[in-house]
Amino acid sequence: MNAAVRSAVRIGVLQGHQMLAVHDSFDGLAHGMIEPIGWSGVAGWTGKGGSMLGTKRSLPNEFMEEISLSITKFNIHALIIIGGFEAFVGGLQLVQAREKYEELCIPLVVVPATVSNNVPGSDFSIGADTALNTITMTCDRIKQSAAGTKRRVFIVETMGGYCGYLATMAGLASGADAAYVYEDPFNIHDLEMNVEHLVEKMKTTVKRGLILRNEKCNANYTTDFIFNLYSEEGKGVFDCRKNVLGHMQQGGTPSPFDRNFGTKMGLKSVLWLTDKLKECYRHGRIFANSPDTACVLGMKKRSLVFQPLSEAKEGTDFEHRIPTQQWWLKLRPILKILAKYKISLDTSERTEMEHIVTKRGQIR
Amino acid sequence: MNAAVRSAVRIGVLQGHQMLAVHDSFDGLAHGMIEPIGWSGVAGWTGKGGSMLGTKRSLPNEFMEEISLSITKFNIHALIIIGGFEAFVGGLQLVQAREKYEELCIPLVVVPATVSNNVPGSDFSIGADTALNTITMTCDRIKQSAAGTKRRVFIVETMGGYCGYLATMAGLASGADAAYVYEDPFNIHDLEMNVEHLVEKMKTTVKRGLILRNEKCNANYTTDFIFNLYSEEGKGVFDCRKNVLGHMQQGGTPSPFDRNFGTKMGLKSVLWLTDKLKECYRHGRIFANSPDTACVLGMKKRSLVFQPLSEAKEGTDFEHRIPTQQWWLKLRPILKILAKYKISLDTSERTEMEHIVTKRGQIR
Amino acid sequence: MNAAVRSAVRIGVLQGHQMLAVHDSFDGLAHGMIEPIGWSGVAGWTGKGGSMLGTKRSLPNEFMEEISLSITKFNIHALIIIGGFEAFVGGLQLVQAREKYEELCIPLVVVPATVSNNVPGSDFSIGADTALNTITMTCDRIKQSAAGTKRRVFIVETMGGYCGYLATMAGLASGADAAYVYEDPFNIHDLEMNVEHLVEKMKTTVKRGLILRNEKCNANYTTDFIFNLYSEEGKGVFDCRKNVLGHMQQGGTPSPFDRNFGTKMGLKSVLWLTDKLKECYRHGRIFANSPDTACVLGMKKRSLVFQPLSEAKEGTDFEHRIPTQQWWLKLRPILKILAKYKISLDTSERTEMEHIVTKRGQIR
Amino acid sequence: MNAAVRSAVRIGVLQGHQMLAVHDSFDGLAHGMIEPIGWSGVAGWTGKGGSMLGTKRSLPNEFMEEISLSITKFNIHALIIIGGFEAFVGGLQLVQAREKYEELCIPLVVVPATVSNNVPGSDFSIGADTALNTITMTCDRIKQSAAGTKRRVFIVETMGGYCGYLATMAGLASGADAAYVYEDPFNIHDLEMNVEHLVEKMKTTVKRGLILRNEKCNANYTTDFIFNLYSEEGKGVFDCRKNVLGHMQQGGTPSPFDRNFGTKMGLKSVLWLTDKLKECYRHGRIFANSPDTACVLGMKKRSLVFQPLSEAKEGTDFEHRIPTQQWWLKLRPILKILAKYKISLDTSERTEMEHIVTKRGQIR
Repeated sequence: MNAAVRSAVRIGVLQGHQMLAVHDSFDGLAHGMIEPIGWSGVAGWTGKGGSMLGTKRSLPNEFMEEISLSITKFNIHALIIIGGFEAFVGGLQLVQAREKYEELCIPLVVVPATVSNNVPGSDFSIGADTALNTITMTCDRIKQSAAGTKRRVFIVETMGGYCGYLATMAGLASGADAAYVYEDPFNIHDLEMNVEHLVEKMKTTVKRGLILRNEKCNANYTTDFIFNLYSEEGKGVFDCRKNVLGHMQQGGTPSPFDRNFGTKMGLKSVLWLTDKLKECYRHGRIFANSPDTACVLGMKKRSLVFQPLSEAKEGTDFEHRIPTQQWWLKLRPILKILAKYKISLDTSERTEMEHIVTKRGQIR
Repeated sequence: MNAAVRSAVRIGVLQGHQMLAVHDSFDGLAHGMIEPIGWSGVAGWTGKGGSMLGTKRSLPNEFMEEISLSITKFNIHALIIIGGFEAFVGGLQLVQAREKYEELCIPLVVVPATVSNNVPGSDFSIGADTALNTITMTCDRIKQSAAGTKRRVFIVETMGGYCGYLATMAGLASGADAAYVYEDPFNIHDLEMNVEHLVEKMKTTVKRGLILRNEKCNANYTTDFIFNLYSEEGKGVFDCRKNVLGHMQQGGTPSPFDRNFGTKMGLKSVLWLTDKLKECYRHGRIFANSPDTACVLGMKKRSLVFQPLSEAKEGTDFEHRIPTQQWWLKLRPILKILAKYKISLDTSERTEMEHIVTKRGQIR
Repeated sequence: MNAAVRSAVRIGVLQGHQMLAVHDSFDGLAHGMIEPIGWSGVAGWTGKGGSMLGTKRSLPNEFMEEISLSITKFNIHALIIIGGFEAFVGGLQLVQAREKYEELCIPLVVVPATVSNNVPGSDFSIGADTALNTITMTCDRIKQSAAGTKRRVFIVETMGGYCGYLATMAGLASGADAAYVYEDPFNIHDLEMNVEHLVEKMKTTVKRGLILRNEKCNANYTTDFIFNLYSEEGKGVFDCRKNVLGHMQQGGTPSPFDRNFGTKMGLKSVLWLTDKLKECYRHGRIFANSPDTACVLGMKKRSLVFQPLSEAKEGTDFEHRIPTQQWWLKLRPILKILAKYKISLDTSERTEMEHIVTKRGQIR
Repeated sequence: MNAAVRSAVRIGVLQGHQMLAVHDSFDGLAHGMIEPIGWSGVAGWTGKGGSMLGTKRSLPNEFMEEISLSITKFNIHALIIIGGFEAFVGGLQLVQAREKYEELCIPLVVVPATVSNNVPGSDFSIGADTALNTITMTCDRIKQSAAGTKRRVFIVETMGGYCGYLATMAGLASGADAAYVYEDPFNIHDLEMNVEHLVEKMKTTVKRGLILRNEKCNANYTTDFIFNLYSEEGKGVFDCRKNVLGHMQQGGTPSPFDRNFGTKMGLKSVLWLTDKLKECYRHGRIFANSPDTACVLGMKKRSLVFQPLSEAKEGTDFEHRIPTQQWWLKLRPILKILAKYKISLDTSERTEMEHIVTKRGQIR
């Protein structure tokens, strides 16, 4: 996300804005941890991992009064909020508070940046590609640790909250035998089928199995539960190892995709805010109160689009902190098919084929 | 591209096709280096770099007669051609030869796979993300080698033929000061401006400069030429180092993006061919002769689309082996702006902004 | 360890030996999973991770009769046993069985290869450097995940059985605050001191803590126990995360150090066996029964030395599967000192210094 | 080398010294770029690449007067000089200048830190392991780029000045076919033999060749020369690619080996200086003028030893900036043997073996 800050600051400066860095998120906004930041203040930030501005999980509702005071005190005309689901919820809270605090009637944009890729309004969030690279590389390493060992199945737990993006995509990339996620519910019967399937496969030439499990896919079918089930049912055929990947998924140098994605998001945010500021400027002041002045900036089908937060809110499952529609779910059948489960693809993808007769009468 | 082969083979098998592996490209097709390949024959291919089936640069026109004989002999009903610009040109040659050889009247699809990302009909090609990761990581390392050294400028040459995709995207990701590419012509005046700009920057607190240059960006302004120019003009202010990255850009374990992209392309190709086979099946044989039976499969705006080769041909600069339209060219101004060149963004992106008066009468 | 096999096979071939590959360890030796292997059979093995010959944890005592028969049947003159503590114990069992089976009176050498670095007779084992690279890189990533987060302590569990080599060396390399290992016993008082120390540090500008814990350092003070202790005592000052690194530590491409170390070990083993074979050859047959015909090859102070297994046995703690003397233990005070614990260095390293008076009468 | 600074500073502080950081090497020492540095000033330095204190290639002879004044002005009692061959030569110049400047009669120690591993007095220098990791990983990638391609030979140029350490060790680790270095002279006949050897190999199943060449191995047999020779002689059998690795070899995150090696060197330096200061302290001042008060700290056979610079000087080839004796040269025959050259190992390593008669009368 530092790449997004870098480009927002630099483009902002070029557009004649005075850019301010808010440290430690909404907490810092409330408590005045705000300072001017210029061109050279963000030098070298493209390649930096983590968050240079600091993070905090607190939400604006805790201190809306202080936030409105800060906005006046620091003369803030517009806000760019870069972060994960908290950034999204925080943006919504600020919008709701516009009723009470006119200071909050300024344009704002939420830029999705989290490894979990669970922010409504965008197909991707900054950081997810980097995390996916790390997870896939680690799964490669884990599988390779069993080279030379007799049959072994690895159960690997990934991050993502309730969002199964990382587990699914890493599973597809690693050739996993299954990827358990919250969005694609499974019961004991499915688990049984999977373990039997693996037992059958291991009786052939296949030597290694890989199961991915998203951290919150199911409160009862935990990584330990699945490990125990596979260990018991695989007894005599394969042994089992488990691995909770943990925080290594959040660190590391950002991938060029995430850097360039962040750069574009930062740029677009500032250009959009510049336009909104002009639109909302009347009688010597800024007043932004319509839904389209508080947006989430997302990549949708490879275009960057601004969607009002109030609209994005409709497509959100707040309990599980995920969008209600997720594009990557349609990739899950591929994972299952390539692991040789007898699952038919969605018929919208293809129609069933009849027997192909030999060409020009030949028979093979 | 091995991930594409893996998913094509497996999905093909599931669809009831007999899948055949052709080794060594068109050469192998002509000379019968063809053998059945099944489910387990592609086990573990997702994570493998390079091409498991072998490559060769020869084009079908060299041995069209032999190819048509092979097609009959091995009873081939459809072709998936995975590769770079040669695959594209090869596909076109096969289509042109349909006039003479009815054996070639079978459905075929070209799947773009090359680090250069220069295949018409697709925004991305399999392998380019992996190469970009390698180049960016190497540029990080190169820049870091100068930590502690007084002012230094690195000139780094990337691959890509005439296509400036890798140089541009790696330049953006690495915070480069310039990225010279064929598609964005430059003359001695531009070079002069760049070097002066860098001399000015280096007089401030900036200590390191990075210039990317695509291998074929200009026949005369070679990496050596640019190195000499920068060395001479930077004398006393910075010293200069050059680096031709070479073949390391083509190796390495594929990134999860490339793996999953390949998997989807392989899957889509087979499903499409299955449908085409049904469409083209009449009176006990396959006969495919319309333009829409020979397509390039591409990602366009994050959708996979099939475009007739004959149509894609229109958008191709064959001399320089690049598409005539390239989406990423619109990112180049961002690179320049973030390197602090005084360049204005396309006005379609935004309109110029007037002075923002202070909110509620405040003055800063 | 594949590099060791490669060089042993190639040097063996050059010396005129017929080289045989035994698959799946002692199990394979007992059950005849043995086949000739030549120069090209090991092509490309230097850079391969895992074990190309396969591994199994079984020990020779389970099937000594079958092993002795295999040795006769395959006409085996000498044995190279590459592996971890099992290889060492297996070698000892073979030596003990010489009393009963004259077939076992052949020269044999144990080559230490395990990430745990716990084989008696050598300062290093093949694979430990690669594992250390992976662990350190992962710790870097874990620490970096907290960039921008307020104070956080990570508890990271490493592999190694009872041997604290990996935890200690990775701790030193990562600037850890503590590294708990079996060889350096600790009690609740030490844990308390450490957590208090960290609480104090975190009150200053320090933001991140890193604690390494070897998997078997203490049966009761588990990773969970330590996590709970730190979480409770750090409440309000820092939060805590834990991470069990797991099998990723065993995979990955071998480092150049491990490759070259393996190559040298393989070479030395064959040269030594060649000499031993000549020594033990009398009246048309091989008979090796003295202690110095069954050695462990180790690196000691950067020299490769052969030590009789019977002698190395003396220096072994079999219960905990570690050598009784471990050179790297003397590095542990450095780790503690650099984490600012008030610990004095061994006085053999230095003598206490008196006040340095100013040079030439100056006073600062 | 930052790890060495970190441990030197921290141990120094613990020993009661006032530690001073000199920026930009001897240049900074002469011009007073000197400031106190404490415990937290080096926080996080273990994992940092490059040189945090800055480097400059100038030698002390250029400004000995200024240096002596700085030593008095900043009341410097002892010097730790961390760096490559320049650090070594600089140390020698300071010692020589003791005749004229009594200010220089203070204890000093040179700590070898350079990727080139060419500092007399030590088997290893800090940074060489990291560079070796990078080079080997890059050679893996380069070789893999040819997977699927017909026969290809890569010529890769490494850094190291005249010192062939990196080329030799990376060649051994990568299974190279040859590694040309200055220390092991070669002529046109050798080149011819190598290329013929490779042509023969490529006629078998071998598909890829790798040649390493140290940058200064020979002024006439340049990388281009060798590339042209191999290209011409390999015509029809293999094609050829060349790659000058460049500055990526100097960057990157330090390996755990280099970090821990640096940490130990920093620690030892300070302890040794502490002792020397006590020895040299008489009548209220420091006076160090004997050869053993100006040493290079090196690792020799895995022990850290201090050798007087005056003595290390004897073992130095100043023209080529390398030690006259280099331990790793004895590994070069292994590289050649494993590439199947008919070269016999040094007989000190082994004696020639006679035919091994079958055991117990068996014949195979």
